[in-house]
This record gives sequence, structure tokens and C-alpha cells, in this order.
Amino acid sequence: MKKMTLIVDMDEVIADPITKLRAWYARDFGKQLTDEEIAGKHLADVVPPEHAAVLYAYLNTPGFFRDLSVMEGAVDVIKCLNEKYDLYVVSAAMEFPHSLKDKFDWLKEHFPFIRWQQICLCGSKYIVHADIMIDDHSRNFHAGIQRKILFTSHHNLFEPADERVDNWEQIARKLL
Amino acid sequence: MKKMTLIVDMDEVIADPITKLRAWYARDFGKQLTDEEIAGKHLADVVPPEHAAVLYAYLNTPGFFRDLSVMEGAVDVIKCLNEKYDLYVVSAAMEFPHSLKDKFDWLKEHFPFIRWQQICLCGSKYIVHADIMIDDHSRNFHAGIQRKILFTSHHNLFEPADERVDNWEQIARKLL
Repeated sequence: MKKMTLIVDMDEVIADPITKLRAWYARDFGKQLTDEEIAGKHLADVVPPEHAAVLYAYLNTPGFFRDLSVMEGAVDVIKCLNEKYDLYVVSAAMEFPHSLKDKFDWLKEHFPFIRWQQICLCGSKYIVHADIMIDDHSRNFHAGIQRKILFTSHHNLFEPADERVDNWEQIARKLL
Repeated sequence: MKKMTLIVDMDEVIADPITKLRAWYARDFGKQLTDEEIAGKHLADVVPPEHAAVLYAYLNTPGFFRDLSVMEGAVDVIKCLNEKYDLYVVSAAMEFPHSLKDKFDWLKEHFPFIRWQQICLCGSKYIVHADIMIDDHSRNFHAGIQRKILFTSHHNLFEPADERVDNWEQIARKLL
């Protein structure tokens, strides 16, 4: 039987850019952004307007995405999902072209069992279809996605969701 | 009314890697691969077995994809298609990770009207769906593609095709 296609997002789902963004921001502006401040918001909307461009520049710094922490439990669960599903890692990376090779190398390091055929770095996810998608951005849940699983992140805390998970343990319970 | 989605491939459709591959091969092995030799074949199947790895290494050389020639007529026709269709450039680039940034920069240079949201660099095109796809590899024409237009290249010359074009002028006549 044909396996179901499963698309897994990268940032804030298997990789953690937020901890690094907050650390760099604290380093440059001497201010630690608290969980309370960023709840339900994008970081760029929390900092003074003149700092938003700095956050953007962080994301386009060569190497920024190369050494991000792996989200807890992601490797073990994805290793199992990779057996059961036709799995793809899809990241909307094109806004930050310096991230492309970094993201590829990061995946090779932490998820060596994911083959290059399973990686997709795109701009919009509108043309990418699947039976199941795990993503922290509900804007990626278009009609071509059958089952939409919102992965909790600080910015989507107060968003309604058909189906929501807070961590990889919950994904394992749902999909394995 | 919603525009139809149109996916355009890169290599051998808007960019010409074959001329450069043949030039590098001639430079290193003193042999010019003729049109007759490569008709209906992949370059790796034409050269002596021990040279196939060299061709592969060419493709993974940083910069290889950065200065490829643009296929004749591609820029003007795609500029018009970009108005009429919801257009995406999708390239199976992930096998050659050094090509990722090169391909992005090449598109910025030659097709500056294509926004980053419209670019997708993937491994397999299996999860990418569209109303129309223009590609030189029929293996990319899966069930999620409604209209499949095979762009003639040396390797597909003798393949059957539902719909085939030999150049961008023919695409303009079909799609504009």
C-alpha cells in the first residue's frame, strides 16, 4: 500500500531559531525578551520598530541556521515516522538565501537518515501538497493539505487550530 | 478569478548546463561530445564509466550553476507568463547542495521579476502540484500535475510525450 505523505516544517518545529534570536538580541541590545512579551506575537512586533530590521538581518547571516538546537524528541520520532510515512522536510527558506546550504547541512548532521530527495526549500508552500502537514504557521495549511497539525510556538499560542500539538511526544502518540 | 498554477523547471528548460558540461569535459578529456552521441541519452551513459563521477563532480562544483546561459526566449516569455499565471520555478537541486545559492542568485540576475516566494528548490518533485508543468524530465509528471509539457532536451528526444515543446516560442504560442 502506498504510504501517506507527511510534510514536516523546520523552524520552530524541528529546529529552534527563537532561542538564538533572543540570545543575539540580548547580546546587541542588552534586553532579554521574556516568554510573556512574545506570547502570541512575532518577535519583530515586540521589539522597537527600528530593531525589526536587525532581527531580519540576523536571519540572513550566513551560519545563523547552521548550529540551531534540535527540538526535543524530534530526531527519535522522525526516525520512526520516516519508516511509516512518505516523509518530506519542507522549509520556507527562500526569503533568506544564505540559509539554504546551512539548512541542508544541518539536516545532514542531525537527521542523516533523511535523504536529499526528501528535502524541499521553498518560498511559498502553496504548491506543496500532502496528506499530513506539521507546521507552526497556519498560513501554510491550504486546501492541498488534508490533515493540518499546528505545532505550538510562541507566536501561535492564541490561534484556533483544528489539531494542535505542543511537542514531539504528542506527535508520536498521534501518528505512530 | 484564481490564476492557474504553472511550474517551470530550471536546468535544460530556462538554464543550459549541457553546453558547460560538454565544454568542461572537452577541457579535461580532450573530447567533444557530439549531438549525435548524446541524443536520447544522459551524458553519464555516453562517457566511459570511469568518467561519470567526474561529470557528477562538475555539477557539485560551487559556482557551476551560477553563470549558465539562459535558454533562448525564456526571459521574455516567462515575464509574460508571470502576469497570466501563478508561476513557480521549481528545480530538483537538492542532489547538489552547492547549487542552491547559485541557482537563487542566477534567478535574481536573469529573472529579477520572479520573487523569492515563487522559487522552490527540492529533491523529489513528487509533493509539488500544479495545473501545468514544463519540464524536460517526464519522471516529474505525476498525478498531481494536470497538464504535462515536456521540454525537448537531448536526453528525451525519443521519448513519447502527451505534449512536447522544442523552445520558448512554442510555449508562448500554447500558453499566452
